[in-house]
Amino acid sequence: MRAILDAIVTKKSGGTLSNETVREVVEGYTSGEIPDYQMSALLMAIFIQGMDYGETLALTRAMAESGETYSFPNCVDKHSTGGVGDKVSLTSLPIVAACGAPVAKLSGRGLGTTGGTIDKLEAIPGFSVALSREQFERQVDEVGLAIIEAGNLDPADKAIYALRDATRLVDSLPLIGSSIVSKKAATGAGHLLYDVKRGSGAFMKSTEDARELADLLVRLSGDLGVRAAALISDMDNPLGNAIGNALEIRESMKLLKGEEVPADLAETARSVAVRLLELKGMHDPEEAVERAISSGAAFEKFGEFVRAQGGDADALEDLPVSDSVREVSAPRGGYVAVVRALGIGHAALALGAGREEKGDTIDPGAGVEILVKAGDLVEKGEPVARLYGGRNVEHAEELVNEALELSDEPVERPPAILDGL
Amino acid sequence: MRAILDAIVTKKSGGTLSNETVREVVEGYTSGEIPDYQMSALLMAIFIQGMDYGETLALTRAMAESGETYSFPNCVDKHSTGGVGDKVSLTSLPIVAACGAPVAKLSGRGLGTTGGTIDKLEAIPGFSVALSREQFERQVDEVGLAIIEAGNLDPADKAIYALRDATRLVDSLPLIGSSIVSKKAATGAGHLLYDVKRGSGAFMKSTEDARELADLLVRLSGDLGVRAAALISDMDNPLGNAIGNALEIRESMKLLKGEEVPADLAETARSVAVRLLELKGMHDPEEAVERAISSGAAFEKFGEFVRAQGGDADALEDLPVSDSVREVSAPRGGYVAVVRALGIGHAALALGAGREEKGDTIDPGAGVEILVKAGDLVEKGEPVARLYGGRNVEHAEELVNEALELSDEPVERPPAILDGL
Repeated sequence: MRAILDAIVTKKSGGTLSNETVREVVEGYTSGEIPDYQMSALLMAIFIQGMDYGETLALTRAMAESGETYSFPNCVDKHSTGGVGDKVSLTSLPIVAACGAPVAKLSGRGLGTTGGTIDKLEAIPGFSVALSREQFERQVDEVGLAIIEAGNLDPADKAIYALRDATRLVDSLPLIGSSIVSKKAATGAGHLLYDVKRGSGAFMKSTEDARELADLLVRLSGDLGVRAAALISDMDNPLGNAIGNALEIRESMKLLKGEEVPADLAETARSVAVRLLELKGMHDPEEAVERAISSGAAFEKFGEFVRAQGGDADALEDLPVSDSVREVSAPRGGYVAVVRALGIGHAALALGAGREEKGDTIDPGAGVEILVKAGDLVEKGEPVARLYGGRNVEHAEELVNEALELSDEPVERPPAILDGL
Repeated sequence: MRAILDAIVTKKSGGTLSNETVREVVEGYTSGEIPDYQMSALLMAIFIQGMDYGETLALTRAMAESGETYSFPNCVDKHSTGGVGDKVSLTSLPIVAACGAPVAKLSGRGLGTTGGTIDKLEAIPGFSVALSREQFERQVDEVGLAIIEAGNLDPADKAIYALRDATRLVDSLPLIGSSIVSKKAATGAGHLLYDVKRGSGAFMKSTEDARELADLLVRLSGDLGVRAAALISDMDNPLGNAIGNALEIRESMKLLKGEEVPADLAETARSVAVRLLELKGMHDPEEAVERAISSGAAFEKFGEFVRAQGGDADALEDLPVSDSVREVSAPRGGYVAVVRALGIGHAALALGAGREEKGDTIDPGAGVEILVKAGDLVEKGEPVARLYGGRNVEHAEELVNEALELSDEPVERPPAILDGL
């Protein structure tokens, strides 16, 4: 295989790959013609030498076209770079669907501290993500909201990501960007909002890094024919109070019904919905979003969507969570400086809310409910969290205690949205 | 395997590997525990980021100790970085053995334009390189000269070199240096002369690059307990007149018998012999070398060595070469600017003197005899080379014609030895 050797020779000395070489390498690796040891050498060279925008676009395009592709030019979708307690898809998408913007979402399962959107939806009894292509397209038309599991979409990304993971080459901006955008381009929604998380609980630790990634995602999407925008949102603390699959569905339903939820979740879900409607060209989207919630249209839309995919919409009012509950109390009084998202994520994982390894089974009723937010004043002994689930409870309590940082000085509540483009 | 991931993470960001990590990686890769795709990623990182001297020494030491090792603290050996018509081992080593410095050489087969020392020796009827360890050690004691094929020596180098070759990562100074020195350290000779070739027909194109490699080889060897020196010699032109296995043995015998051979070969062989004897601490080595040749002792020593390894020493006087001979004539008159070594090497390869791929059979009688040297004035139609062997003769003639560059201006004869350390 000539192309991979050309690519290695070019990239090891800091040169620029041609579009044709990039395409041949992606095709050759996806087909199995290029061995792992040559591909990993190239990925290391890309990691160290970087790729310019043209190379990154060529890689993204070749990956997007490596498997099955969909096309929903009229639809909207969103993508989050991943966070703890992130229920923005579960809330913003029914809202925009209720506002008349159809949503076609192909999603993945979570591998990390907590479940992905698909895992969360499967906490609803009967809910299925195994729709045929025809069923999916019909539901997008008829309900205006459908979410299924990505199947043979972007096999190049699956293969390259697994190799990057096994060679510690995940944290490369052009490789992250091409991985995200190629999957989204293959799912084919015409309007896309990227929710780029930054903070200690996110992949991007600083706002600057998050902005750089957001820029790249929006630019790549645009060049692949997708109208895109991005928000940069905070992930030092978990989003909302609930972490865990059924717990997050419950909190999402509260938001959709107009009940009170933490301000960070309310603000992020609304901002994403507004930006998606703006991308669709809607005037006064703020008002539309408020009306969809206050009228009950968003909650109704979610129920319609759940029923269409076989789920028990009546169960949404009081979704069962684990009977095994332990309350965690504040070890002393003080102002909450931060409830570290990563620590809470690990606690939820220990309780059974996520997968440590591919193939692990999830306990849908397990998770953590945070009872205090950064900026709150707590007294010693006051309950600060509830742990749901019977696995590793002692360890989870330790993790929650470590995640909670108290200060003697008053703490300002951090903003939910840090930037947008 | 923790060590390889640590090494990748360290090296991808330009850090320095610990001695322990280097050793664990070498052991893990040699045993097959570390997969190729992780090792190739690390090799690419090393290629791009480099390795400092300490890392290179740790790698060299770990590779040297990865398999069987020998110890001949009293013996001398030499290593050439490879060239066309390079018969310096065949000539300098019998000379130093005749001067009383015992030689224990473990050598490899050639993969490249012409054969290695082992292939050349096997052009002698009956000669065998398959001695047991005991036979080898006894012959070193009794004859003072033994050359065998390196067996299970430095398996780490074999594995790593094959992977570097398959991922285009051969041309890295620390990887070249550790590959060469680890093999020589495993063979255990206490005194070592490196003949580093530079020029269009060598791996190192410039004298500066050759000097950098020579420095590294000498320093690494010293730190592994080997007394070492280096020469930098010219490889724009082939060394001597003969290229091809039996042809090179014949030319070597002429030198050992004190007959006239081209000055570049005579000078290089003598310089290497003198430097080896200096390393052994001999006074006035120049005189000893001249006496070994003029007295016939060097030629006799070679015959004794050949007989000890089962070869027909009587055949050395007139070793058979191919019957199929074609003469190449000068296309015009002029001064010989250069007889490009690489082109002549390819011509010899085409005629059957070397292996294009591992496992190819060599025609010991095939090769090229150059009849003119850089600086010579030739007339149109004058014979400039003879081709021996029946394979690809037309193509070989073309290659020789392309390799010969004539000038209208007088050309100075290039020096054989460019530098020493």
